[in-house]
Amino acid sequence: MKTKDFKKVVLKYKAVFFDAYGVLKNYKGLIPGIENTFQFLIDNGIDYYILTNDASRSPEQLADTYRSRGITAVTTERIISSGMLAREYLQYKIKHGTVVYLGTKNSAHYIESSGLTTLSVEDANLEELDHVRAMVFLDDEGFVWNNDINKVINILRHKNMSVIVANTDISYPVNKHEIAIAIGGLADLVEEIIGKVFIRFGKPDAQMFMYAYEQVLAKSPMRKDEILMVGDTLKTDIIGGNKFGLDTALVLTGNTIPDQASMKIASSGIIPTHICESVVIN
Amino acid sequence: MKTKDFKKVVLKYKAVFFDAYGVLKNYKGLIPGIENTFQFLIDNGIDYYILTNDASRSPEQLADTYRSRGITAVTTERIISSGMLAREYLQYKIKHGTVVYLGTKNSAHYIESSGLTTLSVEDANLEELDHVRAMVFLDDEGFVWNNDINKVINILRHKNMSVIVANTDISYPVNKHEIAIAIGGLADLVEEIIGKVFIRFGKPDAQMFMYAYEQVLAKSPMRKDEILMVGDTLKTDIIGGNKFGLDTALVLTGNTIPDQASMKIASSGIIPTHICESVVIN
Amino acid sequence: MKTKDFKKVVLKYKAVFFDAYGVLKNYKGLIPGIENTFQFLIDNGIDYYILTNDASRSPEQLADTYRSRGITAVTTERIISSGMLAREYLQYKIKHGTVVYLGTKNSAHYIESSGLTTLSVEDANLEELDHVRAMVFLDDEGFVWNNDINKVINILRHKNMSVIVANTDISYPVNKHEIAIAIGGLADLVEEIIGKVFIRFGKPDAQMFMYAYEQVLAKSPMRKDEILMVGDTLKTDIIGGNKFGLDTALVLTGNTIPDQASMKIASSGIIPTHICESVVIN
Amino acid sequence: MKTKDFKKVVLKYKAVFFDAYGVLKNYKGLIPGIENTFQFLIDNGIDYYILTNDASRSPEQLADTYRSRGITAVTTERIISSGMLAREYLQYKIKHGTVVYLGTKNSAHYIESSGLTTLSVEDANLEELDHVRAMVFLDDEGFVWNNDINKVINILRHKNMSVIVANTDISYPVNKHEIAIAIGGLADLVEEIIGKVFIRFGKPDAQMFMYAYEQVLAKSPMRKDEILMVGDTLKTDIIGGNKFGLDTALVLTGNTIPDQASMKIASSGIIPTHICESVVIN
Repeated sequence: MKTKDFKKVVLKYKAVFFDAYGVLKNYKGLIPGIENTFQFLIDNGIDYYILTNDASRSPEQLADTYRSRGITAVTTERIISSGMLAREYLQYKIKHGTVVYLGTKNSAHYIESSGLTTLSVEDANLEELDHVRAMVFLDDEGFVWNNDINKVINILRHKNMSVIVANTDISYPVNKHEIAIAIGGLADLVEEIIGKVFIRFGKPDAQMFMYAYEQVLAKSPMRKDEILMVGDTLKTDIIGGNKFGLDTALVLTGNTIPDQASMKIASSGIIPTHICESVVIN
Repeated sequence: MKTKDFKKVVLKYKAVFFDAYGVLKNYKGLIPGIENTFQFLIDNGIDYYILTNDASRSPEQLADTYRSRGITAVTTERIISSGMLAREYLQYKIKHGTVVYLGTKNSAHYIESSGLTTLSVEDANLEELDHVRAMVFLDDEGFVWNNDINKVINILRHKNMSVIVANTDISYPVNKHEIAIAIGGLADLVEEIIGKVFIRFGKPDAQMFMYAYEQVLAKSPMRKDEILMVGDTLKTDIIGGNKFGLDTALVLTGNTIPDQASMKIASSGIIPTHICESVVIN
Repeated sequence: MKTKDFKKVVLKYKAVFFDAYGVLKNYKGLIPGIENTFQFLIDNGIDYYILTNDASRSPEQLADTYRSRGITAVTTERIISSGMLAREYLQYKIKHGTVVYLGTKNSAHYIESSGLTTLSVEDANLEELDHVRAMVFLDDEGFVWNNDINKVINILRHKNMSVIVANTDISYPVNKHEIAIAIGGLADLVEEIIGKVFIRFGKPDAQMFMYAYEQVLAKSPMRKDEILMVGDTLKTDIIGGNKFGLDTALVLTGNTIPDQASMKIASSGIIPTHICESVVIN
Repeated sequence: MKTKDFKKVVLKYKAVFFDAYGVLKNYKGLIPGIENTFQFLIDNGIDYYILTNDASRSPEQLADTYRSRGITAVTTERIISSGMLAREYLQYKIKHGTVVYLGTKNSAHYIESSGLTTLSVEDANLEELDHVRAMVFLDDEGFVWNNDINKVINILRHKNMSVIVANTDISYPVNKHEIAIAIGGLADLVEEIIGKVFIRFGKPDAQMFMYAYEQVLAKSPMRKDEILMVGDTLKTDIIGGNKFGLDTALVLTGNTIPDQASMKIASSGIIPTHICESVVIN
């Protein structure tokens, strides 16, 4: 399979959207040389955003992980997380009251910044749900699965409310050889048992791309096909970018390994505009 | 179940998005009195659009069906169809070449207006697919299912290409007691057999609402929750509107009959902001 | 909805298969008067078996719960559990080696009685899987979900092996108002993430009914339609019995409440031969 | 990938179950040399049956296709088709009345031999369904899809009845490079639209294997693991055989091509006991 040089590819575009995990970083940390890529974009006047399916940490905290490793180009306002879309939903649809959540106290930040009261599932009381207005799945950590997943099911059986899933991913890598279930996977389990329809935020959904598109448009007018979406996963980054009308580049530093890229493209019918080894520019 | 008067509800909003079938019309034609509703909106400075999962006819043709029945308020530019989103996709992603389609010659209008060459599946040749760039599902009529659905499967096995489904609906009503399979249902069948991932346009997907939101914003600034989405179907109109951040009104003149509304809301967890008998304003 | 007297119904048959939960017992214990039903069957020479989706306890232990409450008619050999089918699978297909399991030590009984070595997921070592021949989902209790469900996923990614789910149920009632996720639900989650095909045992699968049918045939010849399957759940007991060729009776003491029985039959298309209030015979 | 010699493998067993398409025949006709295989089985006293997902032709007609090509060893009583299981269901569950069907007049043979009246969907009248007791999906040919698939949907909306699918396959090969939708695929489409639960017969379901097992047991006692199921498809033949407790052999003359066998086994987790090039014995 022939790959293209990312440097030559990116010069054709006015803006780039990056997936984070598998593109800018992996289980070892940041991909070496990534600082050159951002410098190249800045030098050439190409706008950029990070689009990440993550509701476990705030954009500020996500930006800190880049800054602490010497990448100053990734500031808070460059980061668009699925958690931000969930927060926007809550702002529009749930104006007051209490929102019950699954996740760490830290992830509950997204709800609190909407001005709503948060209540962990652990602390919720099945007999006192009158003030509860919605349920949000934020993070796979921060609670005892045996207890709290069953408790969520019974909360949703006792009171009808909107359910928001702040990350569509069903799994994520924890190291080179192991993965873990993401909060989106746990939400699928609860949805199967309860038989209700949940509201999910994250790639490949259009809302993620729309949010980023609005940011670039606020600075400079551009057509959708003047933007490049870069990702390592066909079923989220590439199909999502394609559907939204963006050009897309698949990189081989994460989920899609070089040996299997051609086969996966053929079997899924998800066709990136470009294939590049990585986003590193030397 | 207590319903609200649509007149009082709609006065709280700056714009209204209407589903067409089950809201403005049904198997008998336009719902009587609908002209008063549009006059009321105009008199009160409330903007409005029709959002319809339909790729069988152009917006011009769809507007004609209203005009010919005396509703002049529904002009071409008031209509946003899922076919228009499919067309936009083709404009951004498929710049030249031939697109194969399932549907009537009439539905192929959406592709032709993108400047692409159209080829019905019937006329396609399995041995000459080099120039074919994409496959589009447009309409359930205009072709022999026995032959052409199988032919689509073999076209997609012979050449990897993007597949666009221009209407997410799986069925539609043909009269009071009968329904028919919509093109979205036929696309599901082909996708199951071929194992590839298709790109679908239509409610409840966010892109449909985004397109309409951009239209109203071009005329007047407004927040998402200053817009009301009105529909008869929880799983397309209401969940889609909710997820996008709009307020929503379920009407009982179509898919959701009065007796079952409460039960369907409880079992699906899809909760409209309002429930109204109909959109008729006396 | 007109129901029939179970006494009159059952007299037409040579054997009866009972579901346990929702038919013979519920969250309060045995359904009062159930002893008369068994006495009636014995007096009239009608054979009977209990078919239960359960791999958490051995048939001996399940029989004990009846005996301890004064029902001596339900002996060990009258009980056919989905765990027994999983055990039979292991006997035929996994002749030696180690089987890893999720569940209580008690549930591991089913594997040990096959002559295989058992290893809880907690005690398994990802680096030492050479001797492991299969993975079995037995019970939702006895392990820490946060740790061990993720560990199962990584075991199955490291070594290809058969995966057996010893109970198809995705949830079960824990009291009048609450349910819990059953091991079949957890298996669905793992299967979704890992993308492999698991082997499931339990109703509505034919193997459950076949096993019971072989037991009655060993004593007395009879046609399938001379046997009555009695259950409270359309999607397991009734469709399973129907498909196997048995007559079926839906009872309203469990999962299907009287108010909803007609609606559920109409919407599912699963039609029992008879509907009875309960199996109690006065 | 190392394959084993089928001759050596089969000598370990008392009986063999063969899938037909991809094992004994392909798009060109019978696999050359297959007559030696049957002679070898006869010479060595190994019993054999053909298990085929097919309801388009009667066992007599299926046997004729072998006989006419010189294979006399495949007699009518050696053939077990999914259509036979559907017929058995009708005999037990639908004692009289009319059964509506999709398929050729020829395929309706399976219903007629149950003593029931048959009515093609084309000839059915939506207003006169009182005498109709069940609907059977038999074959993808013999009717106009555009009309009759929609008509089936409306028949099932007008009257609640059992629906039987006499072949689980969703597609079948028509020549070296093309496939077609099988009746099981059309049934999936109708089931999705109508939201009801259909009853399906065919591999990998246990009932298919049970029926064959009863035939061999009637002649000679044997354990399940003394029988070898031979097939070309992991998701029907091999997983079905494994689950029933049989040993299994994957052959590479059909659906699973040599290049992909290892990958498909690894990704599906469906592990055959043996892998053989073909069933041909020289």
